[in-house]
Amino acid sequence: MARGRTTAPRDMVLGHEISGEVIEKGDDVEFINVGDLVSVPFNVACGRCRNCKERHTDVCLNVNPTRPGGAYGYVDLGGWTGGQANYVMVPYADFNLLKFPDKDQAMKKILDLTCLTDILPTGYHGAVSAGVGTGSTVYIAGAGPVGLAAAGASQLLGAACIIVGDLNKERLTHAKRFGFETIDLSVDAPIPDQLHQIVGVPEVDAAIDCVGFEAHGSCGEAQPAVVLNTAMDVTRAGGAIGIPGSMLGRTLGRPRKPPSTAISPCVLVSAGQNRSRSTPVRHP
Amino acid sequence: MARGRTTAPRDMVLGHEISGEVIEKGDDVEFINVGDLVSVPFNVACGRCRNCKERHTDVCLNVNPTRPGGAYGYVDLGGWTGGQANYVMVPYADFNLLKFPDKDQAMKKILDLTCLTDILPTGYHGAVSAGVGTGSTVYIAGAGPVGLAAAGASQLLGAACIIVGDLNKERLTHAKRFGFETIDLSVDAPIPDQLHQIVGVPEVDAAIDCVGFEAHGSCGEAQPAVVLNTAMDVTRAGGAIGIPGSMLGRTLGRPRKPPSTAISPCVLVSAGQNRSRSTPVRHP
Amino acid sequence: MARGRTTAPRDMVLGHEISGEVIEKGDDVEFINVGDLVSVPFNVACGRCRNCKERHTDVCLNVNPTRPGGAYGYVDLGGWTGGQANYVMVPYADFNLLKFPDKDQAMKKILDLTCLTDILPTGYHGAVSAGVGTGSTVYIAGAGPVGLAAAGASQLLGAACIIVGDLNKERLTHAKRFGFETIDLSVDAPIPDQLHQIVGVPEVDAAIDCVGFEAHGSCGEAQPAVVLNTAMDVTRAGGAIGIPGSMLGRTLGRPRKPPSTAISPCVLVSAGQNRSRSTPVRHP
Amino acid sequence: MARGRTTAPRDMVLGHEISGEVIEKGDDVEFINVGDLVSVPFNVACGRCRNCKERHTDVCLNVNPTRPGGAYGYVDLGGWTGGQANYVMVPYADFNLLKFPDKDQAMKKILDLTCLTDILPTGYHGAVSAGVGTGSTVYIAGAGPVGLAAAGASQLLGAACIIVGDLNKERLTHAKRFGFETIDLSVDAPIPDQLHQIVGVPEVDAAIDCVGFEAHGSCGEAQPAVVLNTAMDVTRAGGAIGIPGSMLGRTLGRPRKPPSTAISPCVLVSAGQNRSRSTPVRHP
Repeated sequence: MARGRTTAPRDMVLGHEISGEVIEKGDDVEFINVGDLVSVPFNVACGRCRNCKERHTDVCLNVNPTRPGGAYGYVDLGGWTGGQANYVMVPYADFNLLKFPDKDQAMKKILDLTCLTDILPTGYHGAVSAGVGTGSTVYIAGAGPVGLAAAGASQLLGAACIIVGDLNKERLTHAKRFGFETIDLSVDAPIPDQLHQIVGVPEVDAAIDCVGFEAHGSCGEAQPAVVLNTAMDVTRAGGAIGIPGSMLGRTLGRPRKPPSTAISPCVLVSAGQNRSRSTPVRHP
Repeated sequence: MARGRTTAPRDMVLGHEISGEVIEKGDDVEFINVGDLVSVPFNVACGRCRNCKERHTDVCLNVNPTRPGGAYGYVDLGGWTGGQANYVMVPYADFNLLKFPDKDQAMKKILDLTCLTDILPTGYHGAVSAGVGTGSTVYIAGAGPVGLAAAGASQLLGAACIIVGDLNKERLTHAKRFGFETIDLSVDAPIPDQLHQIVGVPEVDAAIDCVGFEAHGSCGEAQPAVVLNTAMDVTRAGGAIGIPGSMLGRTLGRPRKPPSTAISPCVLVSAGQNRSRSTPVRHP
Repeated sequence: MARGRTTAPRDMVLGHEISGEVIEKGDDVEFINVGDLVSVPFNVACGRCRNCKERHTDVCLNVNPTRPGGAYGYVDLGGWTGGQANYVMVPYADFNLLKFPDKDQAMKKILDLTCLTDILPTGYHGAVSAGVGTGSTVYIAGAGPVGLAAAGASQLLGAACIIVGDLNKERLTHAKRFGFETIDLSVDAPIPDQLHQIVGVPEVDAAIDCVGFEAHGSCGEAQPAVVLNTAMDVTRAGGAIGIPGSMLGRTLGRPRKPPSTAISPCVLVSAGQNRSRSTPVRHP
Repeated sequence: MARGRTTAPRDMVLGHEISGEVIEKGDDVEFINVGDLVSVPFNVACGRCRNCKERHTDVCLNVNPTRPGGAYGYVDLGGWTGGQANYVMVPYADFNLLKFPDKDQAMKKILDLTCLTDILPTGYHGAVSAGVGTGSTVYIAGAGPVGLAAAGASQLLGAACIIVGDLNKERLTHAKRFGFETIDLSVDAPIPDQLHQIVGVPEVDAAIDCVGFEAHGSCGEAQPAVVLNTAMDVTRAGGAIGIPGSMLGRTLGRPRKPPSTAISPCVLVSAGQNRSRSTPVRHP
């Protein structure tokens, strides 16, 4: 898991982007019913601890015996079985599940709606963390799925100009198709200069790192900090940076607790347990 | 109930300021145990609906069949049995109960700690709503329990000068004993002038209405709006007003939904039902 | 002025929506230059007092000798000469003026850009006050210029469904052309029912009153509070209401200070003085 | 300057903690008068740029030709002459100066009030950045002047338990005298264990780094990151860290712009110019 950086046991069930129909529910589930079509946020949370009450469900205190915060199908995040399976059990279903109000309508867009479990809110969180709002100029590092979600979220939040940078030309072509500006990082030109050509100044209001610690330089060599450093270079004084990209502990330091401005969908070592308040979900 | 303004049935059990020991718990209560000493916030909330997730537990969508928001021992707030009894049932106990971490230590201060259920957070909410912070000058209308709680909360929030006004001299003497400034509203002098003598200007940064719609003029006649009007008169432009005092619908308008800046501990008519996720609590 | 409610002197120069070119500047103006094309926000503010520092430029303490807050061409708002003239003097020009960075580009859109002085930020402020954000359902009372600005602002802020209500069919047709949903208030059907037909529930997350105290009932009779009462009826518990519509003191109470959630472009009586830090602006 | 890390010219006037009496004022200063007793915040700011309007006066765009942000008596912060002199010139005096309303009263406490220029707001900013509020448990690294200011600010903000850590026993004794808890970092015991003895858990809600990059290990060796790492270790998941301590660019990375959660009173290289809107101040 995560290219050898964590030690997932051989038979572990992965998968944390789960949508489906409820086929069975626990006695204490009140507001979700069998037959409901639901989205399952990748974070597992109890809804009852101090952190959940303060809306920090990413560091729920009750779903992981080894540290705060749980997720489905991850090493060291509570041992919750992943969603690459026929059925999955969802604890604290009333709190965790997002029910689609109109099942038929939702089924017609179900492939889009699956993005609600992780990729879209992760990109959205990156945009909000970076302070994106009406009229913002935004630089997004990485034109992968999270990068495009951050770009789409920035649009939704009212950004005036959204610029996506990547080394991969196909991804940039794809980003252009949605109407975003692009910067080709394989070109031999400083990023501030490329931004200047688009927005008239060599900096932006907001930068979002959608690459993380697996960043590479323009020659293909691993450069874990290159994207964050670029983000600091191109964000104006008084602006902000969002970091949805994964920062693995051993690489950049030792964040024993997830940093407050980032969702880290990939984290560390070990196993877990703790299982209750269940609602199994079948994939559509 | 509320001096004839609501129609409480003859045998209704009142009481919404409840502290006690847990003597029995439901199957699905995980984090509260028999023997725990707990405070019971007067709002009943499910912890699972949109409003609870957004921290508006005062307008929980699942605990009252007739409107958003529930409370113990009230007419029209969900039919939850009140606490003036030997035992009381608390729904969604994991979410609602506040467990005292050290039982013995808490028992030594139990009479003070009972204020945590309603009176103290109501006053605190008024102070926060009024924007009280470091260095604020604060005028609090009403030297009753909520007024004193608002005054204490203002102190905790860093106010520089806290002034309590009332018609009742004994209450004012009591307020003075805690170190608060006082204004005698029975004296024939405009309130701005009295404030001027204390803070050097005829206005304050923050005003808190701890009287509500049962306000009276200095001659004893009912004047439902007098306190709110005074609050507007004495709050500086750019300041704010907190309104923890009860505003009963029929008197001042028709707030079918509780106003966002107020906790209204007294509200309207009718009965309720809905009972589940229980934990009975015995009074200490 | 304001249909007889204020006593404007016969020769008073009105006008508070001003854009133009700078033709002369004071000695102490550093960052605005002759020849700059600028937008003039309708509020006059010093940029140096406590309220301006706290971003409450609407209640600046230094631009009006009679009360906090100033504006161009208004009775009782500081005596600043209005913009329905060939030239106008702008005090504290560095702080007040919004310079268009590209003059030629701006001139091509100058009729749109004039909306930046009042109408657009007023509508935007209403939407922000009402808590409009990603996915909000919004009801806007009034399809006039402020109503449409509030609708456009709601779109920019990410609203999912924007509904505009008015008695005037032509305005509704106009609103529909921009893609907004509409409700015809002259039809004999409760507003909650009409909302239900559009959003599936009889309420919205946010309501914006773009009518103010000059509201009328469906039969044409004056009903100053009808719009606010409707807003309270249709906003869900936990939602919020924005009030950019004018509420004149004598009609609904006595707000000696502008309410914190509203811009009131029309206010009360009397004259003023105070003039300095000037930059005259010529209309384009 | 800063122990050889910056290249201050030989005759540079240092000093950025300035209080005094106004003895002369520029033509355009309106609200400050000769004779006023004033505090001079160490940041120089114009009050007119985007950043100042958004309350980021620490990165004012108009007071330093080489980068955003200015201060008195610093290398590379705009070339503003420092306050270790008989007279000092304050630009944008209306915006920058804090006038004491009662001169005689202020003179009686002038030695305390000098803390308003830098040390107290720096500590307060650290506490606010760390999310300190009602009931917080706080760990403050460093019992020097900023550490004690952060401790005092935490008290003002309502913290329940304030713990100061240092290697220097005399400083700890001094901190104890004000009623703060202390941790002796020269003792061979893990900091989480020492915190556990005081608050019952090995972590706190908020940590404030009042040491900065000149941190040392318990044996006296330079360890630039030791305090920040400790702060991350002892802050609970969902808590926050404030960093008023100086982080010099060359040591820990290259923050070309001040990080958003820190005031960095010591920064980098070079000279400056730009001088206008002046008010000289004489030290009392």
